[in-house]
Amino acid sequence: MGQLATLFEPDRIAVVGATDREGSVGRAITANLLADFEGDVVAVNPTKDEVLGLESYDSVTAVSDVDVAVIVVPPPVVIEALQEAGEAGVRDVVVVTAGFGESGSEGATRERELRELADEYDLNLAGPNSLGIMNTGVGMNATFGPESAQRGSISFMSQSGAFITAVVDWANDRNLGFHNVVSLGNKAVLDESDFVAEWGEDPDTDVILGYLEDVVDGREFVRAAREVSRDTPIVVVKSGRTEAGASAAASHTGAIAGSEAAYEAALDQAGVLRVETVQDLFDFGSILAGQPLPEQDGVAIVTNAGGPGVMTTDAVGDSTLSLASFTDETVDAFRDALPDEANVYNPVDIIGDAPVERFEEALDIALADPNVGAAVVLACPTATLSYEALADAVVDLQAEYETPVAATLMGGSSTRSANDTLSAAGIPTYFDPARAVRSLDALREYRDISRREYTEPETFDVDRGAAREILESADRRDTNRLGVEAMGLLDAYGIPTPAAEVVDSRSDAVDAAERVGSEGRRPSGNRTQSGESDEVVMKIVSPDILHKSDIGGVAVGVPPGEVADTYEDLVTRAHNYQPDATILGVQVQEMLDMDSAVETIAGTNRDPQFGPLVLFGLGGIFVEILEDTTVRIAPVSEPAAEEMLSEIDAAPLLRGARGRDPVGEGAVVETLQRLSQLVTDFPAIVELDINPLVATPDGVRAVDVRLTIDQEEL
Amino acid sequence: MGQLATLFEPDRIAVVGATDREGSVGRAITANLLADFEGDVVAVNPTKDEVLGLESYDSVTAVSDVDVAVIVVPPPVVIEALQEAGEAGVRDVVVVTAGFGESGSEGATRERELRELADEYDLNLAGPNSLGIMNTGVGMNATFGPESAQRGSISFMSQSGAFITAVVDWANDRNLGFHNVVSLGNKAVLDESDFVAEWGEDPDTDVILGYLEDVVDGREFVRAAREVSRDTPIVVVKSGRTEAGASAAASHTGAIAGSEAAYEAALDQAGVLRVETVQDLFDFGSILAGQPLPEQDGVAIVTNAGGPGVMTTDAVGDSTLSLASFTDETVDAFRDALPDEANVYNPVDIIGDAPVERFEEALDIALADPNVGAAVVLACPTATLSYEALADAVVDLQAEYETPVAATLMGGSSTRSANDTLSAAGIPTYFDPARAVRSLDALREYRDISRREYTEPETFDVDRGAAREILESADRRDTNRLGVEAMGLLDAYGIPTPAAEVVDSRSDAVDAAERVGSEGRRPSGNRTQSGESDEVVMKIVSPDILHKSDIGGVAVGVPPGEVADTYEDLVTRAHNYQPDATILGVQVQEMLDMDSAVETIAGTNRDPQFGPLVLFGLGGIFVEILEDTTVRIAPVSEPAAEEMLSEIDAAPLLRGARGRDPVGEGAVVETLQRLSQLVTDFPAIVELDINPLVATPDGVRAVDVRLTIDQEEL
Repeated sequence: MGQLATLFEPDRIAVVGATDREGSVGRAITANLLADFEGDVVAVNPTKDEVLGLESYDSVTAVSDVDVAVIVVPPPVVIEALQEAGEAGVRDVVVVTAGFGESGSEGATRERELRELADEYDLNLAGPNSLGIMNTGVGMNATFGPESAQRGSISFMSQSGAFITAVVDWANDRNLGFHNVVSLGNKAVLDESDFVAEWGEDPDTDVILGYLEDVVDGREFVRAAREVSRDTPIVVVKSGRTEAGASAAASHTGAIAGSEAAYEAALDQAGVLRVETVQDLFDFGSILAGQPLPEQDGVAIVTNAGGPGVMTTDAVGDSTLSLASFTDETVDAFRDALPDEANVYNPVDIIGDAPVERFEEALDIALADPNVGAAVVLACPTATLSYEALADAVVDLQAEYETPVAATLMGGSSTRSANDTLSAAGIPTYFDPARAVRSLDALREYRDISRREYTEPETFDVDRGAAREILESADRRDTNRLGVEAMGLLDAYGIPTPAAEVVDSRSDAVDAAERVGSEGRRPSGNRTQSGESDEVVMKIVSPDILHKSDIGGVAVGVPPGEVADTYEDLVTRAHNYQPDATILGVQVQEMLDMDSAVETIAGTNRDPQFGPLVLFGLGGIFVEILEDTTVRIAPVSEPAAEEMLSEIDAAPLLRGARGRDPVGEGAVVETLQRLSQLVTDFPAIVELDINPLVATPDGVRAVDVRLTIDQEEL
Repeated sequence: MGQLATLFEPDRIAVVGATDREGSVGRAITANLLADFEGDVVAVNPTKDEVLGLESYDSVTAVSDVDVAVIVVPPPVVIEALQEAGEAGVRDVVVVTAGFGESGSEGATRERELRELADEYDLNLAGPNSLGIMNTGVGMNATFGPESAQRGSISFMSQSGAFITAVVDWANDRNLGFHNVVSLGNKAVLDESDFVAEWGEDPDTDVILGYLEDVVDGREFVRAAREVSRDTPIVVVKSGRTEAGASAAASHTGAIAGSEAAYEAALDQAGVLRVETVQDLFDFGSILAGQPLPEQDGVAIVTNAGGPGVMTTDAVGDSTLSLASFTDETVDAFRDALPDEANVYNPVDIIGDAPVERFEEALDIALADPNVGAAVVLACPTATLSYEALADAVVDLQAEYETPVAATLMGGSSTRSANDTLSAAGIPTYFDPARAVRSLDALREYRDISRREYTEPETFDVDRGAAREILESADRRDTNRLGVEAMGLLDAYGIPTPAAEVVDSRSDAVDAAERVGSEGRRPSGNRTQSGESDEVVMKIVSPDILHKSDIGGVAVGVPPGEVADTYEDLVTRAHNYQPDATILGVQVQEMLDMDSAVETIAGTNRDPQFGPLVLFGLGGIFVEILEDTTVRIAPVSEPAAEEMLSEIDAAPLLRGARGRDPVGEGAVVETLQRLSQLVTDFPAIVELDINPLVATPDGVRAVDVRLTIDQEEL
């Protein structure tokens, strides 16, 4: 165990605010602790002599060797009680009392004081506004909930106390046990990251489940969870996913909405299995606690009923698993063992008249196949089959092969005792075969997480000084928006841009066009073909004009003879469109050959919870309409950038669909890494879009850039 | 009731093959019938004098007034038994015996004979290879399953008998009842369309559920279901959705795989709610049987627990429903009724200490709001709340307002009796609030289906003769593939094509280019701008060359001076590429202005189960990569074609994204209708693609066409 060892395994707990008043929280907690706790329980309440048979002390300072103080006194005296606990040398505290940050400005002040005290005395403090905590390992139920959890290997934290009471009630009915249960409350001191880290070091916790409405410190959570999730699966419902949900969460716990895309990326990068429903949370938690991880993705289905076998096969088709291909030996073995009408291929249909022995033999053959990574045992009730005997056989075979198995014994009361046998052995059972397959798929997903190798992000040799200079120049011009005039930022970070110059006169434009146009004649596949190579692109440069194209501020394919006139034309249009706009000049840019190019977008923005994000996607009009983009929390390593390329729907376009040449994926990958480094180096960059980032077989060119900076951070 | 009234409500049933042999199917059926059937049961078995207390007859011909014969004799004597039944005047038959089409060539022959006899005697025949049928309305369990269903208003058909036994066992455990249950078996005579039609006329059936692996007559099913689904919801699991599932279904029941896209379109057009899991099948079935349809899409959530309230709100966000916006009166009423800490906006959080009276008052206020179309009652267990009292209150209020309600009483054994109360009143209850919201969403979906207006497809004035001539010309050339030489087919059906001529000499090409190019100078917005208007597109015309572009068989933007040389060039390339290809000439086509155009695709193909389909989507390279397409079973009416346009992801592109002019949607819609008429008129057209169908603000042009024909059908 880690730094919270004493919080979860105290020898002596003091209930500060213990009372015997019927219906009170103080009574409920004292009674829950007295029920099963292996250590000492001490009552602290200056107005009582005795509480539920315990001597009542005036103050926690009057008791020696208190390890944990559970504070349930009224809000105005919590701070005092906390101070006494600190003075008494108590370092682990659960503050159950509500009336803090969740309830107005007085409460917010109180929460600040609480945080300061916790800091002063170096307290491990859970809450305030918490249902409490449980550790079934030592019989400790320090909550005011109506039921104690049963023993198990799942540790569960929840940002809703009510949800804990519901889950414990429900789980007890299903013999689903927990190791620790934590009601996070307002997370004033200890938060999800602390409990994840603690349970990661706890040999009695096999699976971590969480219900979260927000994450206090996004980057810390990712760090902690990434470390823990290699060995201990973490499954989380992060609610407030939808717009309506986020606003409901804000009103419930004051959760600050980080963007949903950031949560999605962060939880994924942290190795957290994110689920959307309560059903998946406990389905996935149960199978992860009960079954080993599959070595193969192939699933064997063994059934006495063809129709449900087809449904199960569809569920496998919907998952990331596949129907196992049996070896010839396996098929032969099925042929020997099964009647002629049986289907000896997957799904294995052993026919409706199968007794348990046939089921057993078929499952034995299937599990012995090296291509089978997991199995679904699927049965409909028949006169010839005993579900109890089948459950016993499945438990034995699962233990023998150590291959994950999920069961679907279809039916109602006839399945009850068999299902008890199976779930006692950690084998999940469902009426709906789709749930069995989803659960096995969660095992596969966690297997891949546990095998992930974390690659440190690469640090490229860049010109940080030049980049800073460009950002500061914006500050001097008193603007927080930059456009093509900031292309040098990309140059400084080694992101290729087309040859270009910004000019502020007709004649400079003509000279620049000659230099820039000649770039197109260099023998490089990325440049335009000869014949067109003298043409240039010209764009108005103004931090005040956001959509250059819309006002006719971009001219494409300008031949040398028209450069001077085009210069005048662009400047005039900009002045007419927006007389007060600062015009920095006109950019004269090399024309790219777009024939074998794909327009992509690379961008960054800053999330309140998770910091800088890097985005990649299909560019142009498709960014807005098809939203074919993917996001990562920075810093982005090389394998992460490669994943981003594969993830977008249009990935085949990059790989050369319909006989086109594939684009240079390496150059795109490197651009994303360099962009990640840029935005990490400069917190002042609030938002930056390279759109389009033109990808061709020979590399990339950042054709346009737009960014917003926060001058405070410079 | 319809033509199957006697099958489901016979006065006298004969079990042909009745026996008292332990473990036999004949005994099980006889015993099941004897248990509760209100009518007479007659045993037919020449080898017995008496079966389970019934006198046993030698033949069904020896008994008078038999309404239904259930045949369970061994396979070789089924035909004989059937003939006797026919002779005896029995018109309704259930053939339970297996060993027909599902089992080899002898069985297939037997099934053919069975079908012929059914035809001869005009039999309503269910099966063969069926578990049997039930009608709880008259206590008739004519199956060999271990349990009888409870009474209810759901009628259920299944292509898997085993699934029926599982479902009945499971449903009895949950007090979920059925009206009729049918094991479809091999569907040799009566199939899903017949039962759908029958139950559509049955006042005792409120909901039709089905498990199907295929549909015997696709177009008949669509016709029957579309009629019935206006008044009676139909929910179906059609398995074999995935490739693996389809192949498993083929091996299970020999289901012929129609394309998944065709099933998807057909079930939708038929007004069938298609679900993917067993859980959804019964969740949706239960709520449709128990609750009224919502008048509004707004959902009110009333809860004593904030966290689960947020999860429920997310589920609403995931659905097609929305969180109801309360009126000011409602908010005021909540303020009056609830404590200060309560949330008076949706989700309404009445706080953890709420007694049942507060829940009742809050739900009353919510249901009275005109913006509330449905409500979720969501509770966590607390010391102050009685779930039983809450259930009673919810039942009363639901009945009073006749607004659909779903409940989520979270917890385990503490919820049992409350859940019984709720489900007895038709109010579904779940542990997972996401299921409650999904179920309400199913009500919304069915409400929209029930309000659908069926529009007859329009019949356009076309030149059918000209079209036939073009198709026959292909026949004369002994090919089944046609390309641009068949553009006349589109002209004949009023689908606009660019001006074009097919020529077979240099000089004709030059002449044609002059005529075609001049089209571009006509004052029409769809034409190219002046200056470019003389240019033409030239394409090689050969039925043997599928991908013209890939061999350099297409030249775009050919100026008048280069037409002759380009002609030679295209022909030479085609000859070099494929020396044996039949070259019909070169098409000289008007150049279109692509600046404000969107490339789409319109196509048709023919599904083995559902006949001609019409497809629409984004064209060009995106068809292959992004698969942004949608499909309908022909004929396609105007509103259906309009829906197709809205359904594709790229729909905003058609509507003028990013300041572009919207394309003429009416022209696209009309093209889809005309295409539908073409493919309906000519079954010989197996496949036809217009790619691209160029859509501009001024209309559409079919730029290229490719089709495959089946000469047998000409």
